Amino acid sequence: MRAEIVAVGTELLIGQISNTNAQWISERLAEIGIDVLHHQVVGDNVERIVRALELAASRADVVIVTGGLGPTQDDLTRPALACAAGAELIRRPEIESTLRERFEIRGRAMPDSNLAQADVPEGGRYIAPERGTAPGLIVKLGPATVYAVPGVPSEMREMMEGVVLPELTAGAGPSALVSRTLRCYGLAESRVSELLDDLYHGSTNPTVAYLAGGGEVHVRLSAKSTTAEAARALLEPLERSARERLGDHVYGADDQTLDAVMGALLGERGLTLSCAESLTGGGLGERITAVPGASAYFLGSAVTYSIEAKRSILGVSEATLDGPGPVSSACAAEMAAGARRVFGSDIAVALTGAAGPEPYGGAEPGQAWIAIDAPGLAHQHGFRWPFDRELVRRFSEMAALDLLRRHVLGLPLPD
Amino acid sequence: MRAEIVAVGTELLIGQISNTNAQWISERLAEIGIDVLHHQVVGDNVERIVRALELAASRADVVIVTGGLGPTQDDLTRPALACAAGAELIRRPEIESTLRERFEIRGRAMPDSNLAQADVPEGGRYIAPERGTAPGLIVKLGPATVYAVPGVPSEMREMMEGVVLPELTAGAGPSALVSRTLRCYGLAESRVSELLDDLYHGSTNPTVAYLAGGGEVHVRLSAKSTTAEAARALLEPLERSARERLGDHVYGADDQTLDAVMGALLGERGLTLSCAESLTGGGLGERITAVPGASAYFLGSAVTYSIEAKRSILGVSEATLDGPGPVSSACAAEMAAGARRVFGSDIAVALTGAAGPEPYGGAEPGQAWIAIDAPGLAHQHGFRWPFDRELVRRFSEMAALDLLRRHVLGLPLPD
Repeated sequence: MRAEIVAVGTELLIGQISNTNAQWISERLAEIGIDVLHHQVVGDNVERIVRALELAASRADVVIVTGGLGPTQDDLTRPALACAAGAELIRRPEIESTLRERFEIRGRAMPDSNLAQADVPEGGRYIAPERGTAPGLIVKLGPATVYAVPGVPSEMREMMEGVVLPELTAGAGPSALVSRTLRCYGLAESRVSELLDDLYHGSTNPTVAYLAGGGEVHVRLSAKSTTAEAARALLEPLERSARERLGDHVYGADDQTLDAVMGALLGERGLTLSCAESLTGGGLGERITAVPGASAYFLGSAVTYSIEAKRSILGVSEATLDGPGPVSSACAAEMAAGARRVFGSDIAVALTGAAGPEPYGGAEPGQAWIAIDAPGLAHQHGFRWPFDRELVRRFSEMAALDLLRRHVLGLPLPD
Repeated sequence: MRAEIVAVGTELLIGQISNTNAQWISERLAEIGIDVLHHQVVGDNVERIVRALELAASRADVVIVTGGLGPTQDDLTRPALACAAGAELIRRPEIESTLRERFEIRGRAMPDSNLAQADVPEGGRYIAPERGTAPGLIVKLGPATVYAVPGVPSEMREMMEGVVLPELTAGAGPSALVSRTLRCYGLAESRVSELLDDLYHGSTNPTVAYLAGGGEVHVRLSAKSTTAEAARALLEPLERSARERLGDHVYGADDQTLDAVMGALLGERGLTLSCAESLTGGGLGERITAVPGASAYFLGSAVTYSIEAKRSILGVSEATLDGPGPVSSACAAEMAAGARRVFGSDIAVALTGAAGPEPYGGAEPGQAWIAIDAPGLAHQHGFRWPFDRELVRRFSEMAALDLLRRHVLGLPLPD
């Protein structure tokens, strides 16, 4: 079954709000195995709404329309739907009396403009609202079924969950979509795709999709079948093969962030961590403590932004500060050793670098050094990021978290 | 001028992500007086992308396409655009060599799949990327101009701000929209609206819009005219009145963040700052150092997440840690005094609290204490935020920055 989502509202086209309704509906339809092939957004204009509905009905079995069902004169989904269906709007007395009751309960007189909400295209059905005053509509446009629901997210969800999704599930027959997202660090998106492409090339079920951003790549595997169990059976061999090929670059799955995965590894092993940060100004500590319960393993971070603080708080040597300078492998190593001593932690990680836009400490923008200090280990790694200030900092934090993960798991560290 | 936004990506149709790009672009186009009449979203399918492009080009003067420019085989905007334009894809050697350089800098070999990113439809132009590896494309489809930019929001914004919006502004002819955003801290959105509503009620030019989020309220004033000068003349009296009514709650304008405004105030006065953070785990230092050149006034932050670090590094007393505890006015005050001593800064600010979801140190989630220590000043302020972990941390950072701003400007501090 093919579906399309049409959102009506000029506020979407001027960027006042984002079309989060389309995301929510898309996710719900995917869960019951219905493919959404298009989204459209159109403004409060009858002619353009009619054309959008006709286009959607020409290529989808099910059209979900959101918005434009309110009582004001820029709410035009109702007349547009009647026009597209070539049907008259018929006033339904039972809707009218329900609307009047709602206003009476709140001690208000119903404005006449609300009366239009009692109109239903001839031959169509309506969905009675529980929260708001806007009834939904169900109308056939040729072979397609159009469900029109309000644009207010809570009212939309009420009708989708109460009526639309149950009807579609019943009509779609037994069907289930199961997904798994593998989260990878340390491989470019193009390399991930090279490693996996032949696993699914040309396959429409299961499918693989990539999403890159923030220094990591997410691989989303999805399978459809008549039951969730059968879909999982389709997915499992694919997930196994993908994990084998991506190896220890896969750090987690689904909603697990690298911060949370790294924290859980420390927590399980009863290890404590501290940081020394210059480049990131506290951003690494901020990420680590974004995870509830981080106080079980995280002791703190010495954000030594000035040269003097590197010396006085962390004990970085004059020789290092005067010689290779604050952006150097040696400085990172001494910062990590200093943090481990000052906080008394099992492991410490240090970050120093030139975030840009100007060179700093004799280093070009984008140069970063990360050091780990742990019993029997003093490891440093250099990076040169071709990014702006913000991304240099974010990517350096990710690299530090992944180095920590690899160290705790006993995986080989990059040179 | 009429515009349309076409987003390409199956991840949008299965609801994995929301089409926030369309909102951002719509807002930017509205600012320069370009009407957006439709959004479309289409999946990673060449035929459907071609049809979406043709439809958009048939009804808009400008089409902005986001996504599908990456290096993998589900990135199909490039071939679809060539197909819709009836043009060959021509490999551009200068793009190829730039791509190879980017990979070399990061010490990685470029996968062959990235080569496709060097292809440009014959007769088209390209936009060189600064952050990512995906070049943008500019192609004529009949009378319409299509701008294709990456789907990664930071890369999309870079090309929109650097190339697309300036081109469209230049092409839009003698019509100017001038805007000014006043950034306010310390007033609820409803209070801001109460203070300003009568200034513009019913006016369509100039207009006022409010945007609340992250603890602050932005008041956006916009005026349109034939020249920028005439638009500014419309705007100025409105801005003056708004500033008078909002008073010292207006901390900056347009793109000035509170971090940058506070930093500039310190820099102008030759004052240095340090922090002591528990609640925010480094987030305050991270914000302060997000501003290029922060090393002129920011010395560092002692992120003392553990009780022991508060004692050993900042010298918080046993009496305070055992008595009122780590989430207390006294602890915040001693942390600030300790940071000022350890870093040798003119001013220090400390943050401690219970971010949640669990109570911490005898305090309920949402309880936060902020202290400022400066010559002749030891000020503490308590907050109880009714928010989740992330927002408690973000709002506390904003409150600390605003306290610092008020202190440096000599404005009254809240009780």
